[in-house]
Amino acid sequence: MINSPKYIYNDALLKLEEEVDRVLSSSPPLIQKYTSHLGKTKGKMIRAKALLACAMNEDSLIDKDAVYLGAAVELIHLATLVHDDVMDNADTRRGEESLQKKFGKRTAVICGDYLLCEALMMASLMENKENKVRDTIPDYMSKVCLGELRQHVNNWNFNLTVLEYLRTIQGKTAGLFEASFYGGALLMAPDVPLSVIKEYAKLGRYIGMIFQLTDDCMDYEATENQALKPVKSDYEQGVVTLPLIHALAEVPHLKEKALKGMVDEETLDRIVLSSGGIKRTRQLAKKYFDKSILILDKLSLTEEKKALLSKLLSKSYREF
Amino acid sequence: MINSPKYIYNDALLKLEEEVDRVLSSSPPLIQKYTSHLGKTKGKMIRAKALLACAMNEDSLIDKDAVYLGAAVELIHLATLVHDDVMDNADTRRGEESLQKKFGKRTAVICGDYLLCEALMMASLMENKENKVRDTIPDYMSKVCLGELRQHVNNWNFNLTVLEYLRTIQGKTAGLFEASFYGGALLMAPDVPLSVIKEYAKLGRYIGMIFQLTDDCMDYEATENQALKPVKSDYEQGVVTLPLIHALAEVPHLKEKALKGMVDEETLDRIVLSSGGIKRTRQLAKKYFDKSILILDKLSLTEEKKALLSKLLSKSYREF
Repeated sequence: MINSPKYIYNDALLKLEEEVDRVLSSSPPLIQKYTSHLGKTKGKMIRAKALLACAMNEDSLIDKDAVYLGAAVELIHLATLVHDDVMDNADTRRGEESLQKKFGKRTAVICGDYLLCEALMMASLMENKENKVRDTIPDYMSKVCLGELRQHVNNWNFNLTVLEYLRTIQGKTAGLFEASFYGGALLMAPDVPLSVIKEYAKLGRYIGMIFQLTDDCMDYEATENQALKPVKSDYEQGVVTLPLIHALAEVPHLKEKALKGMVDEETLDRIVLSSGGIKRTRQLAKKYFDKSILILDKLSLTEEKKALLSKLLSKSYREF
Repeated sequence: MINSPKYIYNDALLKLEEEVDRVLSSSPPLIQKYTSHLGKTKGKMIRAKALLACAMNEDSLIDKDAVYLGAAVELIHLATLVHDDVMDNADTRRGEESLQKKFGKRTAVICGDYLLCEALMMASLMENKENKVRDTIPDYMSKVCLGELRQHVNNWNFNLTVLEYLRTIQGKTAGLFEASFYGGALLMAPDVPLSVIKEYAKLGRYIGMIFQLTDDCMDYEATENQALKPVKSDYEQGVVTLPLIHALAEVPHLKEKALKGMVDEETLDRIVLSSGGIKRTRQLAKKYFDKSILILDKLSLTEEKKALLSKLLSKSYREF
């Protein structure tokens, strides 16, 4: 491994944001409006932060290559958001006019493709070009795409089993989290044992599961605060998630009624809550949380690294 | 360069088809119908054949890596076809129900993403992993995506200039041809001079231009044989191509009439033909043809290689 620059966490994160912003703001005029909008709403970059935290070495420094790989992961995430929009065919998203409605489906499909390409170019900027990392990116990308597909194919499938659901989110959300942790761990040092890298990857998968399970619960819980509720909820879009799967199993005749569109949003929220669907989903998230704590304790981490990863873990568990 | 297996042209082509078929037939159940349909209609694989021909060494043998890279190029081509379908929102294509209509827009978006991912995985199978080749793939992919975008943004733009049109097809169709020739030339031997590789790339770009210009002419010429005419022509889909651009410049008031939808398909075909729009487009294709011949003569090629590349050139010029 040649000696590439190393950064402290905050500087690495700043550089990473610059790289993502550079791609979004220097995009061709034709998709500029689209990408500049993405730049404003790109959110908390939790996947990129996770990658940087994992890449931190014993001196609390982060290799420049992690900045590029983290930026690539964020761009892949944005690309899937854009293509999600097209697939949902949604006119609104979180209260605002959706980008595919605003700028057109054609631009959205290409914009997503463009972001995927830019993600690959970003990854190819890595100087040390660890073959392991580079060879893994396409593999993880395929996994994420397939998870995405499974979700959409299972829309309106009220017979979805718990196992099928878990497999879907493991591929989709958890897949990209796993890739971030795996890639970060690989870039920590030139000689990280495979067993350690695998533990990081597992931690990433668990945190991704917690992230998605919590998100699914919040979609049903947000009723009390309608301002926070997305204009189209999961149910309205036909997305079948774990809280609903549990409710369907508990409550007789709910399936037939839901299929006939005879259940309104508010009633469904109440049923999912009262049937214990949310409680059981939260319990599963707690299981992943406990497993994650065990891994964090097992890995030999510097104080700063442990603090960063613990913060990510607790954020995925409650704050989203 | 380590010694990887080498094949004669026909065997390499057979292996390449096997690789593409393997990806299409081993796709996950959810998109299997989509990809198996693509397998049946995948066409003449002209880009892959070009790559193999360019990769042929002085002993008329082709490195195994060219098989993987050629298969990757074909998969990228298929991915752009699938996403094209979504962007056009077409219900039919060449007389048959379009795949996005048949299997749904969601599946189509993901199927395209999946094929892009599989293309990258295919490219990562290359054993020698010439950095130059691998680093160039994302670059070319971005170029092709942008050309695609430009085309779609320019639909119904009857003010499109010749230059803008040429830039679009140079990015889109010619971009993937150029990548095929470039990649093939790089894999010919471990020590190909950059000047030679650049000549191959230029030849690829020219052949791509001929291919697209001829295709554009045929869309207007096919009237006489309605059986060959795609159900939705370029004009009906709002695609503005060179024969039409020339006709618009020659014929007064055609632009206003076309914009108002006052020109029917058959009349337009006649006008484009009689105004010299097709003749001038064919003349431009001829220019690229002559330039290509000059390059073919300049490159020192074995007899077999020259025959293959000449055949590709003449096919692009008339048979499509």
